[in-house]
Amino acid sequence: MSIECLEHKSKMRLPVSLYLLSVWLGFLCVIFVFLWSGTWRGGFSWDGSFLQFNWHPALMVTSLVVLYGNAIVLYRVPLTWSRRWCKLAHAGLLFMAVVLAVLGLCAAFDFHSANNIPHLYSLHSWTGISTVALFTLQWFVGLCAFLLPWTPLAIRAHLKPLHIWMGMAIFILSLITSLSGINEKLLLTLNGRNGSNTEPYTALPAEALFANSLGVLVVIFGLVVLKILSTPKWKNPEFENETDRPLLTDAR
Amino acid sequence: MSIECLEHKSKMRLPVSLYLLSVWLGFLCVIFVFLWSGTWRGGFSWDGSFLQFNWHPALMVTSLVVLYGNAIVLYRVPLTWSRRWCKLAHAGLLFMAVVLAVLGLCAAFDFHSANNIPHLYSLHSWTGISTVALFTLQWFVGLCAFLLPWTPLAIRAHLKPLHIWMGMAIFILSLITSLSGINEKLLLTLNGRNGSNTEPYTALPAEALFANSLGVLVVIFGLVVLKILSTPKWKNPEFENETDRPLLTDAR
Repeated sequence: MSIECLEHKSKMRLPVSLYLLSVWLGFLCVIFVFLWSGTWRGGFSWDGSFLQFNWHPALMVTSLVVLYGNAIVLYRVPLTWSRRWCKLAHAGLLFMAVVLAVLGLCAAFDFHSANNIPHLYSLHSWTGISTVALFTLQWFVGLCAFLLPWTPLAIRAHLKPLHIWMGMAIFILSLITSLSGINEKLLLTLNGRNGSNTEPYTALPAEALFANSLGVLVVIFGLVVLKILSTPKWKNPEFENETDRPLLTDAR
Repeated sequence: MSIECLEHKSKMRLPVSLYLLSVWLGFLCVIFVFLWSGTWRGGFSWDGSFLQFNWHPALMVTSLVVLYGNAIVLYRVPLTWSRRWCKLAHAGLLFMAVVLAVLGLCAAFDFHSANNIPHLYSLHSWTGISTVALFTLQWFVGLCAFLLPWTPLAIRAHLKPLHIWMGMAIFILSLITSLSGINEKLLLTLNGRNGSNTEPYTALPAEALFANSLGVLVVIFGLVVLKILSTPKWKNPEFENETDRPLLTDAR
């Protein structure tokens, strides 16, 4: 292969710097969301108290934003793994995300039940429950269509564009829900109610600055992931025709 | 042209039903956001009171979501207008959106000033001000690069992918900001403070149901617009090579 051709191929690949930026931003999001609860909200517990609620933002940002974002850019990373391993890594990361998201929901529902707070009243909760429901459905359909070997190839090919589009839509829903959730938590906790003795949100205390910065980080991470996904030249040609063979017969 | 060829061409075009759905959803968003303030929040005024604040959600949803969304799908609609008119319609709709967004910001800032509420403390306000700033910058760069005839074609061609990507990113920022804003307004007004005698948000009164539904409509509208934008086969081939000639010499 000529040098020009190799250079052309490398230009068509996702730049390592951009991929590392997305990984680093995701890591920062997780650090920030755990530090927020750890530093200003008393840490974590599973006892129906505010400390249980603290798991909610921590698990939702970790699962629906960071793990999910990393799972959906996996096919753009110029990996040398076989298609089978890439599929399993994609499904595995998303399975971890489903489990953590359901745990994160349980943390919020348990806290509401223990404190006589109604469930699912806010717009944040409406978009959030829809996101988790769609994500779980997408994971099961993805499992049946792309991992189980007996799915007819015609169905697999037919579902692939829908699977990719739904994956991106669910990620955008996750970003929308995360931002409204961080905003909601700050509005509800930094106003002197709920036994909190903090300065009000309007005075922008250190906690508010930190949690707002978390929100900004989530948005930047999300836009970097969407940029990686929406740039056709960074598609990995190895995966373009994946629907033409079932997983278990494909050991490449 | 053979019937098969005509059928193939029509399959490659944005379905009229999907375009009408986006227009209809956008129209519903505007109706809902005005009805919310008109029915439950006392209507509109420009006197520093809550009635002035009511312009804020109404103008922001109308401008940054609905007008903006319609302007960015314009190039996907199989119009028979010349390229010049499509560009002018795109820029004109976005100019209306910039003006209404700035007015919407003024409504919020004036209300804050008149009521000694600090500006720009919430995460919603941080993402909102960033969205409007990026949008205004994008409009000016777009005007200079794609409407003024003396911009070198090389610069125009270089900027086009960035302009398209930034346009989509700003729209996603608008969706994120709108949802956190509707959620914030409901949390701040439906809690018995601010002289409001309404039922609390947690009891999900009619206003909360209605405004949550507005949020859901905004999300669905946004996803339909993003679906239209991200489907390559619906790109209008008439506009694909638009950067190879300046506007004023192109009367097609």
